Amino acid sequence: MHPSKPSAPAGISAESAKRWQAHYERVTQGSGRLFLMAGDQKVEHLNDDFVGGNVASDDADPEHLFRIASAAPVGCFATQLGLLARYGNDYPDVPYLVKLNSKTHLLKGPEHDPLSLQWQTMAQLADFIHYSGLDVVGVGYTIYPGSRHEAQMLTEAARLIADAHALGLLAVIWAYPRGQAVGEREHDPHLTAGATGLAACLGADFVKINPPRDSQGVQDPRLLGEAVAAAGRTQVVCAGGAETSAEDFLKRLYGQIHDGNTAGCATGRNVHQRSQPEAVAFCKAIHAIVVENQDVDTAAKLLVRSA
Amino acid sequence: MHPSKPSAPAGISAESAKRWQAHYERVTQGSGRLFLMAGDQKVEHLNDDFVGGNVASDDADPEHLFRIASAAPVGCFATQLGLLARYGNDYPDVPYLVKLNSKTHLLKGPEHDPLSLQWQTMAQLADFIHYSGLDVVGVGYTIYPGSRHEAQMLTEAARLIADAHALGLLAVIWAYPRGQAVGEREHDPHLTAGATGLAACLGADFVKINPPRDSQGVQDPRLLGEAVAAAGRTQVVCAGGAETSAEDFLKRLYGQIHDGNTAGCATGRNVHQRSQPEAVAFCKAIHAIVVENQDVDTAAKLLVRSA
Amino acid sequence: MHPSKPSAPAGISAESAKRWQAHYERVTQGSGRLFLMAGDQKVEHLNDDFVGGNVASDDADPEHLFRIASAAPVGCFATQLGLLARYGNDYPDVPYLVKLNSKTHLLKGPEHDPLSLQWQTMAQLADFIHYSGLDVVGVGYTIYPGSRHEAQMLTEAARLIADAHALGLLAVIWAYPRGQAVGEREHDPHLTAGATGLAACLGADFVKINPPRDSQGVQDPRLLGEAVAAAGRTQVVCAGGAETSAEDFLKRLYGQIHDGNTAGCATGRNVHQRSQPEAVAFCKAIHAIVVENQDVDTAAKLLVRSA
Amino acid sequence: MHPSKPSAPAGISAESAKRWQAHYERVTQGSGRLFLMAGDQKVEHLNDDFVGGNVASDDADPEHLFRIASAAPVGCFATQLGLLARYGNDYPDVPYLVKLNSKTHLLKGPEHDPLSLQWQTMAQLADFIHYSGLDVVGVGYTIYPGSRHEAQMLTEAARLIADAHALGLLAVIWAYPRGQAVGEREHDPHLTAGATGLAACLGADFVKINPPRDSQGVQDPRLLGEAVAAAGRTQVVCAGGAETSAEDFLKRLYGQIHDGNTAGCATGRNVHQRSQPEAVAFCKAIHAIVVENQDVDTAAKLLVRSA
Amino acid sequence: MHPSKPSAPAGISAESAKRWQAHYERVTQGSGRLFLMAGDQKVEHLNDDFVGGNVASDDADPEHLFRIASAAPVGCFATQLGLLARYGNDYPDVPYLVKLNSKTHLLKGPEHDPLSLQWQTMAQLADFIHYSGLDVVGVGYTIYPGSRHEAQMLTEAARLIADAHALGLLAVIWAYPRGQAVGEREHDPHLTAGATGLAACLGADFVKINPPRDSQGVQDPRLLGEAVAAAGRTQVVCAGGAETSAEDFLKRLYGQIHDGNTAGCATGRNVHQRSQPEAVAFCKAIHAIVVENQDVDTAAKLLVRSA
Repeated sequence: MHPSKPSAPAGISAESAKRWQAHYERVTQGSGRLFLMAGDQKVEHLNDDFVGGNVASDDADPEHLFRIASAAPVGCFATQLGLLARYGNDYPDVPYLVKLNSKTHLLKGPEHDPLSLQWQTMAQLADFIHYSGLDVVGVGYTIYPGSRHEAQMLTEAARLIADAHALGLLAVIWAYPRGQAVGEREHDPHLTAGATGLAACLGADFVKINPPRDSQGVQDPRLLGEAVAAAGRTQVVCAGGAETSAEDFLKRLYGQIHDGNTAGCATGRNVHQRSQPEAVAFCKAIHAIVVENQDVDTAAKLLVRSA
Repeated sequence: MHPSKPSAPAGISAESAKRWQAHYERVTQGSGRLFLMAGDQKVEHLNDDFVGGNVASDDADPEHLFRIASAAPVGCFATQLGLLARYGNDYPDVPYLVKLNSKTHLLKGPEHDPLSLQWQTMAQLADFIHYSGLDVVGVGYTIYPGSRHEAQMLTEAARLIADAHALGLLAVIWAYPRGQAVGEREHDPHLTAGATGLAACLGADFVKINPPRDSQGVQDPRLLGEAVAAAGRTQVVCAGGAETSAEDFLKRLYGQIHDGNTAGCATGRNVHQRSQPEAVAFCKAIHAIVVENQDVDTAAKLLVRSA
Repeated sequence: MHPSKPSAPAGISAESAKRWQAHYERVTQGSGRLFLMAGDQKVEHLNDDFVGGNVASDDADPEHLFRIASAAPVGCFATQLGLLARYGNDYPDVPYLVKLNSKTHLLKGPEHDPLSLQWQTMAQLADFIHYSGLDVVGVGYTIYPGSRHEAQMLTEAARLIADAHALGLLAVIWAYPRGQAVGEREHDPHLTAGATGLAACLGADFVKINPPRDSQGVQDPRLLGEAVAAAGRTQVVCAGGAETSAEDFLKRLYGQIHDGNTAGCATGRNVHQRSQPEAVAFCKAIHAIVVENQDVDTAAKLLVRSA
Repeated sequence: MHPSKPSAPAGISAESAKRWQAHYERVTQGSGRLFLMAGDQKVEHLNDDFVGGNVASDDADPEHLFRIASAAPVGCFATQLGLLARYGNDYPDVPYLVKLNSKTHLLKGPEHDPLSLQWQTMAQLADFIHYSGLDVVGVGYTIYPGSRHEAQMLTEAARLIADAHALGLLAVIWAYPRGQAVGEREHDPHLTAGATGLAACLGADFVKINPPRDSQGVQDPRLLGEAVAAAGRTQVVCAGGAETSAEDFLKRLYGQIHDGNTAGCATGRNVHQRSQPEAVAFCKAIHAIVVENQDVDTAAKLLVRSA
Repeated sequence: MHPSKPSAPAGISAESAKRWQAHYERVTQGSGRLFLMAGDQKVEHLNDDFVGGNVASDDADPEHLFRIASAAPVGCFATQLGLLARYGNDYPDVPYLVKLNSKTHLLKGPEHDPLSLQWQTMAQLADFIHYSGLDVVGVGYTIYPGSRHEAQMLTEAARLIADAHALGLLAVIWAYPRGQAVGEREHDPHLTAGATGLAACLGADFVKINPPRDSQGVQDPRLLGEAVAAAGRTQVVCAGGAETSAEDFLKRLYGQIHDGNTAGCATGRNVHQRSQPEAVAFCKAIHAIVVENQDVDTAAKLLVRSA
């Protein structure tokens, strides 16, 4: 059964609520579930995700992301405004979500708790939408609960969510507990539930989390139950993580939705590290599970393999 | 005897003063005393307060808070704007208090003095009230006197109180001395009196404190005397703390009001960790003491017990 | 001889200059000297100054401050805006000075150089004055020269003084050299002169200092000479410090004015730690010396003693 | 073959897009490639680049930079607004790029991660352009990915790029991974590709990098491939570095363009450390390669040598 | 030969340029050279420069500065706005330069890199000028290249220079390399040239430096050559430093101008530590050299000596 269609958040004009509803319908493709294609890794992981190992050579070019998003049935494609400004006009049919903060992964270790600050202002984003005419459906922002810089990010998140809603835009929070105070616990199911509840309190429409693991480090979709409950009406989607086999991915995704009660997925590397035809087919398979509510076998038949 | 009805704070328009008076009357239910249901723990304690141990399974869902607040005779229900935006329209009869700052409890220990910053701006809050039509009666903000970040929080608190009053809203300060410089003294009666006096100087209408303890760590309502005196016309309410037996809670509350001269209570976990019927009944018992000025036995008759 | 009446500071409108002149006349009661009753200790010292030891029981209630200020011939009563908002309307005849920054004394020691930031904005203060109709004559702000946070406070002080003058308000600077870099020198006469000169450069109308001491820690009014000279047209007043006998206080005050050439006093604890009748009488005695230019014996006759 | 002419970034008015196109055409001199003369070293390296060793005596005077830029076929000359305000009117035909942030090289070593903040506001820049009538074609800003201060600089960069585009100005990012977390890796080809991809996500039109080196520290234009691919439609130009022989410079430049697929060069010291005639001739040789698409021998014939 | 009259900086309105020209003419007294009387030491050095040792007793009173500035042929007198607000109206003929940032010297040593922040805003300064009608010709600001806080000060400096020029005001930068990263090199001629070049890039009209010394710590006017060249059209003036004999001062000044090619001097202590008649005569001698282009012997005849 698909999640029911939510009402627009309170506290915005009727016109904004109408726009929010339309955006929600658009990104969930009428299913109540979201397939978000995440494409913010060129900052978050620099070029690590785009070359080497099993990464398809197509992925060296940023336009690869747009080609996939345009050809595949994604709910929305999330990336930074700069890339959108450069490629959006050539791919005008894609629903875009602007990732408003990003940081590199160069600063790490116990002495460098993560800090990721808002890039463009909401006024700049509003101008961008007005002048570009692109189909911008929402904004994304990453918070790191437990980071020494937590307070700064929670404030930015709360304000941009309120502003996004006032513009009729959706707000997606990437919620990753991290930092010296979090240590090894970042995939703990209970802490993950804390993160989704926090995102709900901030007003997020969707919260993207890393799927929780048990004390042996094993993922099990049933571990998601606490997080989905804690999020309440804020819908939970799992990050896809590093590339895995397409079939394993689909199985895990099916479990997250049907055993974990999540409302879709937000995946990046697993999509764009494949060649264009493979990536598009892979997106179709994800779409089958998330939006068409198919089973894994049916979805897997949509996959194509490189020669 | 009930505390007398206070005048609106000076320095605001006649219209704002009228609105402030109406809000004050509303939250004190004509009694001069406040029963504030505190529901900001999904950020402050993440999911720790909502699952496990004796916590009722109802509490895993954030809507539980709203169901209680709607069915029970609370003076106001305090929570973050994000949750309010998501559930408020379905519970339009509840008087809401927007908790404007919150932090997680992940950062602790001597190297992490608490810092909790304002989330939404007052302009965003005003828009929210305007467009939602919800019954927002005031704002809440936590200060941590003694934290290395004290100055930042005192400034935010002073400014938002002035702005809240200008909008005709009540201002409630959560005042918790904490940080390396405070150490073990956080429940000291004299320091608690310092905190209530500070809240009065900031302009708070109500100040929520943890009930003070003597040097053996024992709570005694008579220890509240200094804090209530120091607060002057700012009304003191005690936090409820972790769950305890309903009867013990009511006795302690009665003592705080009649021996400690506090003006009500602000309780969260003790309410929402119970099942819906128990929680509502418990609220009725609290209401009996705080608002109806009943004795403990009369109030306790309103309690219901789970099977 | 009384100090001559100063001109309004340059750089403000004729109307603001007129208001400044009226405020100056008001607080100096036509004498050119200021008797400032300081009542910001509920934040600065939390509840330490208000209970225990020889402190009169009246002082546990913040209204005690207003009762004294209303019944006694003080030049102005300085306190935080929050208290003023709560009690001001009941004591409308008092000339008030709004202390705009305050901090607690919980953070101390070499690792915690003092930081005290502005609470309300000047726009909020202007609204407060407009709507309350209270007799707000000026603002106060504490600087800590030598603190690691000095730069932040000097900037805030300079800006609020300019804004205060533009509104026709007086500006009083509390100047206390403090912090690890100052160490034991905080009462050094030469450093004190540095502080009064600094206040003059910031544009203060009055500067409140702790009376300097010689290398044995002894106060002598003649040690004030350098500081009064360095302040130029900015008038110097000494803080009263912890409670002492009323007669000693009056003698010291007389010396500060006649041997030290200061322009009055700014005292708090010495006033409000007494019972209401004693405190009012004590204020009359201070007024006799500061404003009426009487000698110590004449002034001392005005004192009353508790039973 | 020259790179194709790019479209203006999305999200700006048609008039701004037209101005952006004209500026792009102007700085690439119709070739799609950029020869940027970098003149921000008076801050970045203080006077180290301008005197001593083989530096021509002409270079001691800042006007030397303007004399070269005016006489030589540069695409644009980048310098700080202060110098431009002083010399621009005498050299009105030069296309200028305003370098908006700069820092000295005095703070270095592991305890001093680089921080370079925006100097003038965009409103000040817009006024400058309006009143001066100078041919300001764009702005420049340096980011240091991996610096502890990275977040602050990424935010400033993203905002000023959006503002620059809204004014029809080009945006050039100097992208230099640096800081304790980067250590010895700053010339690593893979990290360099991370930096160009990051600049693309910020929305830069051009990104200036230090040419990457292999593990032996050797430059090879083929190492640029990853960075140029990662940058996508953002054009990559290499910094010229410290002075080398003119012939070696031209060979390296030719390789960067034809083997590395870069879109020009951004050079400073190699130009201005020469005497006026040599510098102008050297610029003509660079222009021959970058804009006229000549080979090294043809370009080298344009060089002149000091007596 | 006198330096030629410079054009107004580009990027301001014709009216502002006209005002800038008039101010430039005024402070250089038609000579192209500047005699700036520096009077910001009451903050920078607290009371150290004003009492004790050979300091004339006149100097204990801040008005001494204004009496000298009014009676002596100074190009402008630089001091903080607060003093100006208090004394300016009584000395309306003096051309004033408002020193916009200042700090005390209490924080020193390797752990306390200097930080000096802007006091009044430019809007406050503009109001001050408008309402006071005083002859404010420009602003001053100190930067400390090499301080850990360098970035903050460079940004403030760049912005206030742009704003000053937009108001038709001159901008003078005090440029003092300092901090742990600078250490003993603060008087190094090459680093001094870096500082003057930096000031030029910020857009300063004049830059005040400490005269450079050779490796033995000896001042020689010829060491100024690099700094004067690096400053380009920004005029260099040397700080006067601690008091020395008037004749030695004049000789050194003559050398700085004629051998060092500086454009005047900025001196404070050497002037105001003398008695009123001596100070005025000393200023006349300085004026003779700086403005009248006299030799040392002629200038020295203007000196008077205390009894």
